[in-house]
Amino acid sequence: MNEEPEARRPACFCLLLLMRGDDGKVLSSVGLGAFIFPGNVWGRFPCTCRLKEGMIMTLLEETINSIGALDSAAQAEARTRLDSLTKPPGSLGVLEEIVVKLAGITGEKCPVVREKVVIVMAGDHGVVNQGVSAYPQEVTPQMVLNFLNGGAAINVLSRHAEARVVVCDIGVIGEIDAPGLVVKKVRHGTADMTEGPAMTRQEAVRAVEVGIELAQAEIASGAQILGTGDMGIGNTTPSSAILAAFSGAPLKNLVGRGTGLDDGRLEEKRKVIEKALEVNRPDPDDALDVLAKVGGLEIGAIAGTVLGAASRRVPVVIDGFIAGAGALLAARLCPQVTEFMLASHLSEEPGHALILELLDLEPMLTLKMRLGEGTGAALAFHIIDAATRIQVEMATFQEAGVSEKDI
Amino acid sequence: MNEEPEARRPACFCLLLLMRGDDGKVLSSVGLGAFIFPGNVWGRFPCTCRLKEGMIMTLLEETINSIGALDSAAQAEARTRLDSLTKPPGSLGVLEEIVVKLAGITGEKCPVVREKVVIVMAGDHGVVNQGVSAYPQEVTPQMVLNFLNGGAAINVLSRHAEARVVVCDIGVIGEIDAPGLVVKKVRHGTADMTEGPAMTRQEAVRAVEVGIELAQAEIASGAQILGTGDMGIGNTTPSSAILAAFSGAPLKNLVGRGTGLDDGRLEEKRKVIEKALEVNRPDPDDALDVLAKVGGLEIGAIAGTVLGAASRRVPVVIDGFIAGAGALLAARLCPQVTEFMLASHLSEEPGHALILELLDLEPMLTLKMRLGEGTGAALAFHIIDAATRIQVEMATFQEAGVSEKDI
Repeated sequence: MNEEPEARRPACFCLLLLMRGDDGKVLSSVGLGAFIFPGNVWGRFPCTCRLKEGMIMTLLEETINSIGALDSAAQAEARTRLDSLTKPPGSLGVLEEIVVKLAGITGEKCPVVREKVVIVMAGDHGVVNQGVSAYPQEVTPQMVLNFLNGGAAINVLSRHAEARVVVCDIGVIGEIDAPGLVVKKVRHGTADMTEGPAMTRQEAVRAVEVGIELAQAEIASGAQILGTGDMGIGNTTPSSAILAAFSGAPLKNLVGRGTGLDDGRLEEKRKVIEKALEVNRPDPDDALDVLAKVGGLEIGAIAGTVLGAASRRVPVVIDGFIAGAGALLAARLCPQVTEFMLASHLSEEPGHALILELLDLEPMLTLKMRLGEGTGAALAFHIIDAATRIQVEMATFQEAGVSEKDI
Repeated sequence: MNEEPEARRPACFCLLLLMRGDDGKVLSSVGLGAFIFPGNVWGRFPCTCRLKEGMIMTLLEETINSIGALDSAAQAEARTRLDSLTKPPGSLGVLEEIVVKLAGITGEKCPVVREKVVIVMAGDHGVVNQGVSAYPQEVTPQMVLNFLNGGAAINVLSRHAEARVVVCDIGVIGEIDAPGLVVKKVRHGTADMTEGPAMTRQEAVRAVEVGIELAQAEIASGAQILGTGDMGIGNTTPSSAILAAFSGAPLKNLVGRGTGLDDGRLEEKRKVIEKALEVNRPDPDDALDVLAKVGGLEIGAIAGTVLGAASRRVPVVIDGFIAGAGALLAARLCPQVTEFMLASHLSEEPGHALILELLDLEPMLTLKMRLGEGTGAALAFHIIDAATRIQVEMATFQEAGVSEKDI
C-alpha cells in the first residue's frame, strides 16, 4: 500500500468510515466528515467508505469496501519457491516481482492467469468542439465497428496474446447497432468542459459503476486477468486535465500531441485544458468531482474496471495514458487498489510517466506507443504469462543438481 | 549504417579490400594496409575484408563480405502499408520500427519470423580463479545439462515463445556427454586473462566461426529469427573487459555484480579487470585482438551467431550484457551488422546501456533482468511476433471505412 499522505485523501469524501476486523465484523464507525487513519496498520484493512449516509450502499461503495490487502503469506511462499529455482535469486527481475504480486492478489503460490480479457470502453467528448484532436469525432463509432470486426490493433494483439476483447459503448454520441457490442450508454458524449462540467456527479458514479459491472461479469465468466482499453476521439484532453487536477503539475509537462497535433494545435490544446480547469475548479480531494468536471465517460469506466477487478482479487493491467488516468481515479477512490495493478508500457504522451509515479508503478515495455485501445496491456500479457510459467515450469537447484551460491 | 568514424575501424585489420558491384563482381581491390572509404555510398556495399593475404578466404572473411545493406525499397513498401492501417501514423512506435527493420532485412513488405531459435553458447573462464563469480565453476556444465533437460529459465521462456533452444559447448572445462548437445569445443575454458591472453588469435577466430556455422546451419534448417544466449560462470568479467577495451570508459561504470557479488567482491572484480587490461593491452582497433586477450569463447561465438544471421539476411535478437559484448565484437568486425540486430531488454548490469548506445540500439523491455541464457531475447520474440502480425492482420482505413486525419 502507498503510504504517502496523498494516498489517503480519498477518505475525505467518505461520510461514514467503517473499520472491520478480519472476520468482516464492524469494529468501529465514525460519522460525517470524520477520519480514521490507523497509521501503519491501515494497509491491513479493506478500504471502507459510504458515499451517502443512511442510504443502501451503492455498488461503488460496496466495491470499494470489498477491496482487501494482498495475501502476504502467499507472497512469502511464492518468493521461497522463486529463490529455489535454478537462477541467482532475483535475477529475473520484474518477472519475479510479477509472480509475487499475483500471488498476493490470488492467494496462490503459483498463480495462473490464462483467461485474459481486454475491456475497451468507448465514449465521446464535447471538448472535441475546441479542436483538440487530429481526427474527426466520427472516428469513435467507426473504430468501435472496427473492434467488433476484429480489424483494429487491439484485436490483432489480443488474438496473439489469446485474450478476448469486450467492447462497451459507455458514451458514444450516435447509436451503434452491432452484434457483440455491450451498450451501457450513460450519456451521448460528455459536455464541453470549457463551458462547465463534462457530466453530472451522478453520471460520473454511473460511469464508474458500469466499469465495475463489466469487470465483475467477465470475472464471473472466467476471466483471470483484465486489461484496460479505451476509445474516444479527444480523450487525451480529459486525461491531461484529470492528471493536472490531481497533481497540480504544470500543464506543459502533462499535455501531449495525442493522435498527432502540430505545435500550434498542441498549444491550443493546453489553453483549452487550462480554461476547463479554471471554469470547473475540480476538487483534487474528491475523485468523483474531478471525473464529473473534467473527465470522460470511458475514463470513469476504466476506473470502475480497475476497482471491479480488485474487488474480485483479479489482477488488472493498465494500458497507457488514458487508462492511466482511469487508474489514477480508481486509486484516489481507494488507494489500496494500486496493489492489484500491473503497468504495461510507458506511453509517448508526456504526462504518462507522472501517472505511473503517482501510482508507484513501473512499466514493463518501452515501445514508444501512443495508440491506446489497450494495446500495451495486450502486449504485457505475454510478459505476465511468461512470469507465471517460470514459477511453475523451472527446475529447482535440487531437482537439477545445480550447485548454489558459494559466497 | 552507423556513420561514425569508429564504425569504420574494423577495416584496419583488412589486408585486401574488395569493392563489389550489385552483381557480385569485383569492381576494385586495394592491397596491404590500404583503405577505401567511399563516404556516403559506403553503406550501399557489403562490408569487405580479408584477414590473411593470398590465402583462401576464411569462413569469417566470407561471412563478413557477404553482409549487405538493408533493402530500402522493401522498407518503403512496409512503411506505406503501416501508414494505411487504422491507427495514427507511427502510433505503434517500436512495433512499426521492427516491421520496417525486418522488411529491410528480409526484403518482404510483410516479413514473417515464425521459426525462432535461441542459440545458447557455453564456455568457461580461467579468470574465475580470481574469485570474480558468486557461483562455483561447476555450475557451467550443470546448467548445460539443465538446458538439455528443459528445466532452465531459457527453456521455459522459449517454449512459451515457441522457439527452439540449441545448446553448444564451445569451451566448457570438462567433457559433457549428453544427447542434444552440440559439441564444438575450441578449448577447455579460457586461460586466466590476468596472466596473459585468454586465448590465441586462432582460437578467437575459431570461436567466432563456430557461431557462424551454427547460425547458418539453423537458418538452413528453417530458422527465420535467431536469439543469442550465453552460459559461463564468470562471463560478465570478460564482457566488461571487452566493453572497457572498445569504449575506454571508466571501469567503475562498466563492472557489475554479475550473479550477485557483494561490495567487497565487486571492488576485487574491478581490479581483476584492470589488471587483465594492463597485462594484455588489447588493441581497440582490432576486434579479434580484444576477443583473444580479454574475451571468452562463448562471447566470440555469439559474435559469430550475429554475423552468421546477418550473412543469411536473418534478424538476430540480442539478449543482455554478455550477448551485447558479443554483438559489439561483431559490430567492430563489420559495422553494418548492427542493422540486422534487435535489442531485447535493458539488463541490470551497469555497462549494458553503454553497449546499446555503441550499437545504436534501444531495448524493448525494461524488466531489471540479469540472468542471461538468452532469456531477454526469448521474451522479445513475443513483441517481434506481435509487430509482424500487426502488419499482416490489421485493417486499413479503406477496408474498415474509418476517416483519416483531418488536419
